[in-house]
Amino acid sequence: MTAVASRPSLTVDLPEGARHTVSVGPLTTETGGFLPDVTLTYETWGTLDADGSNAVLVLHALTGDSHVAAHAADPTPGWWDALVGPGRAVDTDRWFVVAPAMVGGCHGSTGPSSPDPDGVPWGSRFPFLTLRDAVEAERRLADHLGIDVWQAVIGGSMGGARALEWAVSHPERVAGVGVLASTAQSSADQIAWGQAQAAAIRLDPAHREGDYYGGPGPETGLGIARRIAHTTYRTAEELEYRFGREPQGAEDPFGAAVGRRQGRYAVESYLDHQAAKLSARFDANSYLVLTEALMSHDVARGRGSLSEALGRFRGRAFVAAVDSDRLYRPEESALLAELLPGEVPVHSIVSPIGHDGFLTEYGQVADALKETLAL
Amino acid sequence: MTAVASRPSLTVDLPEGARHTVSVGPLTTETGGFLPDVTLTYETWGTLDADGSNAVLVLHALTGDSHVAAHAADPTPGWWDALVGPGRAVDTDRWFVVAPAMVGGCHGSTGPSSPDPDGVPWGSRFPFLTLRDAVEAERRLADHLGIDVWQAVIGGSMGGARALEWAVSHPERVAGVGVLASTAQSSADQIAWGQAQAAAIRLDPAHREGDYYGGPGPETGLGIARRIAHTTYRTAEELEYRFGREPQGAEDPFGAAVGRRQGRYAVESYLDHQAAKLSARFDANSYLVLTEALMSHDVARGRGSLSEALGRFRGRAFVAAVDSDRLYRPEESALLAELLPGEVPVHSIVSPIGHDGFLTEYGQVADALKETLAL
Repeated sequence: MTAVASRPSLTVDLPEGARHTVSVGPLTTETGGFLPDVTLTYETWGTLDADGSNAVLVLHALTGDSHVAAHAADPTPGWWDALVGPGRAVDTDRWFVVAPAMVGGCHGSTGPSSPDPDGVPWGSRFPFLTLRDAVEAERRLADHLGIDVWQAVIGGSMGGARALEWAVSHPERVAGVGVLASTAQSSADQIAWGQAQAAAIRLDPAHREGDYYGGPGPETGLGIARRIAHTTYRTAEELEYRFGREPQGAEDPFGAAVGRRQGRYAVESYLDHQAAKLSARFDANSYLVLTEALMSHDVARGRGSLSEALGRFRGRAFVAAVDSDRLYRPEESALLAELLPGEVPVHSIVSPIGHDGFLTEYGQVADALKETLAL
Repeated sequence: MTAVASRPSLTVDLPEGARHTVSVGPLTTETGGFLPDVTLTYETWGTLDADGSNAVLVLHALTGDSHVAAHAADPTPGWWDALVGPGRAVDTDRWFVVAPAMVGGCHGSTGPSSPDPDGVPWGSRFPFLTLRDAVEAERRLADHLGIDVWQAVIGGSMGGARALEWAVSHPERVAGVGVLASTAQSSADQIAWGQAQAAAIRLDPAHREGDYYGGPGPETGLGIARRIAHTTYRTAEELEYRFGREPQGAEDPFGAAVGRRQGRYAVESYLDHQAAKLSARFDANSYLVLTEALMSHDVARGRGSLSEALGRFRGRAFVAAVDSDRLYRPEESALLAELLPGEVPVHSIVSPIGHDGFLTEYGQVADALKETLAL
């Protein structure tokens, strides 16, 4: 790891695609919390020009990570594989793409499960974070890499919120912003869903106020949070089409005559599966930290009206919404586009599945994104 | 209490409005469970004709009760006050209105908190119920009261589901059915929300697998369930309009710099309030029993196609949907209306608040309901 003290040289030698880590130093959070040493894990694709002018930042969603696309060092599929790569909309033959794991998470960057200076996981002592804290850590990463201006900062869902926060916090360093299925401020509805999810994790006795490392974690609570979240990520229509009222295999959802049902509906089994998958790969404290960071999302905080805040950004803006999204509603994307300076259309991603369409159907807007952001 | 053995006389002397209780005898549930003695609590308004021909059954929603409207014996407001009463759409000067509390609940009728024959609350031993079990108990109540045919069976949400199950189970005893903001079958989406709610209650250590009576109950888990449910009962637009991102009073949702947030957003406080209100008035086991009964709702179960099942009913049908309902979507009401015999329009309740509009804005369809059901 390299400590970031002053501006480093522009020549950072990075093997393409490998996961890198860099210390970006101590971080005092927006609300006064303190982390003595923040490490960011990130992946890169392509080669940075000598003048650092061909860089694109891609930011992940709530439970995402730095693995945006497959590469030689890690050929497993990425979450935006068809968008980022040689010849793709974000052409890695031309652009140097950087994707950090967000601070607070559990995919390499400093988070609640990381050791404090004494080697003890932060747990309950990990500070409350905002998306601006994440942007500050990533600004230092940009400095470290010698990137003055991002040609584009792009993300979907929480990644889009972070991209927009980047654009408004550092308009001079963001030439273009791409916001998919996201908003300028988390809505009351999004806060409501976040609260129920956080409460479910904290209700799990295994959460132990956040200090569960070394023992079993609050997997049941995290699983309930995921069930809630996943249902908001899909549409009622898709769930009906895929599962309807079918039982799961040979199970009988009408179950035992006395006491608890023993069998499940297919949709219950599906959500159980989503819950188990997430619990196996994600730390519950990170889920809490990132969920509450997302609840805090408001590019206008301390910056006047929403219109004034968005008016700070003068670069290219690309906005897209999934037409069936019930969590990040197209109306919210329309408001964002309306308040951004200039004429910003909302590109529609047509999908029956809802919010998750930004992960599965973004191909529909790839060309428009490329053109709008001059990629 | 009166045990229902055979058909009683038609002359049941009921003081208007008081809460009555009647034993409807042993109940073997649809899935083979057994309750040795089911008591139903119900309220009435108006006077039953000598031939028992002027009766209307009104059925409550998930957390509702028998108090549909105020009356002399209990002048507290009811949940459909403006629909039921002298001169109202369901005119109690003309109609004898009966509203039972559903078996499984906690408002007087036999439920998990009721004593078994040994005086011990049923708790974990209470059987899984379906809406058909509730209808069977209510059929016996009709027999007890000497009501052969209901002029109308009316309800909203789960009450609408029960009304429809009545109409399909006993078409010869239902002259008209009124279904507001409800469906013929619980959808995958509704099952998904129900599953998360049930899991949150069961995760609460105070739930103790259902045997918590005499000690503290799973109020936190029930509160989370209510937060989820209440959010589905309202619209994102309404929450945004009422609360937006405002903090609750002088609280700071950005809270402490380290560890758990201390302050709340206004929408969090609102949902905390909804959760506390429900926990104070509702038994968590009853919430589980009724939620899983509603998940089981399917008038077509064992009756062929949905069209065939609905085709059993030949009476008058009134269907209404709240235009902004995201839990019981208007499309589902449209399907129900389409599959009911005859030409059944869907009456639209225009409301910005979503599902709960069936409780607040039903006045919009009161005249149409009265006319359609010949009340």
